[in-house]
Amino acid sequence: MKYSEYSKEQLLEEKKKLESQYNRIKAKGLKLDMSRGKPGTDQLAVSNGLLDAITSKDWDNNAGDHSLEYLNYGLLTGIKECKRIFADLLKVQTDNVIVCGNSSLNLMFDYITQCMMTGSDGIPWKDQGKIKFLCPCPGYDRHFAIAEYYGMELIPVRLTGHGPDMDQVEALIKDPSVKGMFCVPKYSNPTGETYSPETVERIAAMTPAAPDFRIIWDNAYIIHDLTEKCDELVNIFDVLKKYGNEDMVIEFSSTSKISFPGAGVAVIAASDRNIEIIKKRLSVQTIGYDKVNQYRHVKFYKDVDGIKRHMKLHRKILAPKFKAVIDEFENGLGEYGVAEWTKPNGGYFISLNVMPGTAKRVYTLCKDGGVTLTQVGATFPYGIDPEDKNIRIAPSYPPVDELLAATRLLCICVRLAAVEKLLGE
Amino acid sequence: MKYSEYSKEQLLEEKKKLESQYNRIKAKGLKLDMSRGKPGTDQLAVSNGLLDAITSKDWDNNAGDHSLEYLNYGLLTGIKECKRIFADLLKVQTDNVIVCGNSSLNLMFDYITQCMMTGSDGIPWKDQGKIKFLCPCPGYDRHFAIAEYYGMELIPVRLTGHGPDMDQVEALIKDPSVKGMFCVPKYSNPTGETYSPETVERIAAMTPAAPDFRIIWDNAYIIHDLTEKCDELVNIFDVLKKYGNEDMVIEFSSTSKISFPGAGVAVIAASDRNIEIIKKRLSVQTIGYDKVNQYRHVKFYKDVDGIKRHMKLHRKILAPKFKAVIDEFENGLGEYGVAEWTKPNGGYFISLNVMPGTAKRVYTLCKDGGVTLTQVGATFPYGIDPEDKNIRIAPSYPPVDELLAATRLLCICVRLAAVEKLLGE
Repeated sequence: MKYSEYSKEQLLEEKKKLESQYNRIKAKGLKLDMSRGKPGTDQLAVSNGLLDAITSKDWDNNAGDHSLEYLNYGLLTGIKECKRIFADLLKVQTDNVIVCGNSSLNLMFDYITQCMMTGSDGIPWKDQGKIKFLCPCPGYDRHFAIAEYYGMELIPVRLTGHGPDMDQVEALIKDPSVKGMFCVPKYSNPTGETYSPETVERIAAMTPAAPDFRIIWDNAYIIHDLTEKCDELVNIFDVLKKYGNEDMVIEFSSTSKISFPGAGVAVIAASDRNIEIIKKRLSVQTIGYDKVNQYRHVKFYKDVDGIKRHMKLHRKILAPKFKAVIDEFENGLGEYGVAEWTKPNGGYFISLNVMPGTAKRVYTLCKDGGVTLTQVGATFPYGIDPEDKNIRIAPSYPPVDELLAATRLLCICVRLAAVEKLLGE
Repeated sequence: MKYSEYSKEQLLEEKKKLESQYNRIKAKGLKLDMSRGKPGTDQLAVSNGLLDAITSKDWDNNAGDHSLEYLNYGLLTGIKECKRIFADLLKVQTDNVIVCGNSSLNLMFDYITQCMMTGSDGIPWKDQGKIKFLCPCPGYDRHFAIAEYYGMELIPVRLTGHGPDMDQVEALIKDPSVKGMFCVPKYSNPTGETYSPETVERIAAMTPAAPDFRIIWDNAYIIHDLTEKCDELVNIFDVLKKYGNEDMVIEFSSTSKISFPGAGVAVIAASDRNIEIIKKRLSVQTIGYDKVNQYRHVKFYKDVDGIKRHMKLHRKILAPKFKAVIDEFENGLGEYGVAEWTKPNGGYFISLNVMPGTAKRVYTLCKDGGVTLTQVGATFPYGIDPEDKNIRIAPSYPPVDELLAATRLLCICVRLAAVEKLLGE
């Protein structure tokens, strides 16, 4: 029965019951964490071979198609074999790819910094007064943090389940001070949705008032499938061509959640014009990224099929974790009508919407009970969830048993907070 | 006999002789390069073991004092063992060290970018009108390129053989639009000079009109000795304390010329206050640098003594190369009074001053003869050597026989250009 149909007496009784369950679990002194989208130890283990992919013998023999120059300075845009793999993965030309260091977040930060200081292709953003950025949300807190760091106004945009609300976007971009938009087009963080072909088409066809408008196309979960029936994302560069809009999108990706989060390889893909502009800064910023680590990835994965095979090993580890949480939600929350959650086909998160006005309370109850959740509000600009209802669940890191224990407590907290709310407390 | 004492007839005869020598060498079709301070292949070989320093076994066993977290996200300021080594090397506290990615140039670029966008500790530099930066020269072209990229005015400062001309510096910093200075305090690029204790003292005691003045203390050649009698650089942070000036200096270093130029580890050292300010940006810019590569360096070198031992292997390779060039200069140029050159105790360069007004001509003659030199002027702001006399020689990369062939040609070109000049051509 739904809580909304409970009488006051029933609610009071339910509250008592939940408090007693909550206190019993709290007494166990749990220390569980579902807050960050970190690969689990078991996932790291399947990349262990990467550490053996290159040895001194690779250069003692100096054989093969690689070269000693990988150890030395130079090759600003990355080694050719690694560019090939990412070009295949992103379905672009190798000349439109720059393979960089270990962090795509760093690349996005640098790109936006470049736009601020020297412009995306024209007047520096810093010289254009107050500028605004569109933030489909719930979204990725670290995207929002970059725009906030540079004093931009963050404008929330509704997500529809198949990408941003394009009516809203098309209205907002009539304002020339709106300079860009963050997108996680596949298995979006945290909703898990993938932009539909229609959404991608409408994005590619956009005619923003700002001629220097840029979309940060963060394809972080490009092959991070959890199910057989994985989502397909249209290659936006193919569609952009139709509209002569290729300069509007800068794509980012990385192996942070393929190989090692701390020691992967990150990549930029962009139009010829944007690559030229980015290289201009890059040639002042550095002599080159870590080519040895790029080559290590080439030797380990061989090609894009190697990466795809590798991701099936991740799926085997991750799918049961997501299933455990979702099953527990069905069991622990299903009948009470106080929460909704996503069942993503990939990515790293489950997005849980609790009764409006109770997310913060749920966070605190969980924290006091020994379970750390992502800071409530983090998925919204300025850290403020206007409805106080979204909680981002990251099932990847804890082992299944811990995940179950944490989710059980979470369900109790969600119910308890809802009951309190209904009782007007 | 010095060319200045030659009669016109003697000069004409000498010219003929030199042209004939030049053409003979040119006919050989040499393809030699003394342009960039790249470690040689033989130097890379002594770091080959670094590639074996970490294997999958390190994490299969999960033994020792390291942790699986090195493979995952986190640890923004670097792993503790690596911070320890750099703290020992730079003689600062571990809390004053941030260990980063593979490029100290990137760190300097980022730091100056931060100063531009959000200030060094106050008003963003971008909001302070035209700003200026002091450039001791001849200096490092890539330093100057950063300041130029951001539209600063580059002010040349004379180098004395023991650091910048401090009378000149002390006068210039009375201008509040002068925001900083580039320094390569040990084995300066390209003059090879090390700042004397008196110079370091005067730098540390400076009272710039700009309260947000910052010195980029690029300690790139900190233990890159070529001789038994190596130069000693006073630790500027010790001296800064005396004057309450610790926030004025940001130190940078890296293993680019210790391990692999493309795959080393770079580091920032700074005061508590500056570390706080840098971390604030860093926490928005990235989740963390490549900790696996940091750990690889820790396992390979063990400690700062391990690095020092390693650098003796480099010295064995580099010292004969420097000696070959310097001996050849003595033999090929000594008696003519048309050039001076440094005999550095460390670093990567020999600074050659030819007859004023002839450096560009020497460059062209060498190029046509098959020897690539560093672009003449590169060692000065805006690429303009006011006296057209400085040539940066980088002996590290070519094998000794190539180096000798290149230097022989260079000597002939220096003499030929001087003779042409004296003949008023």
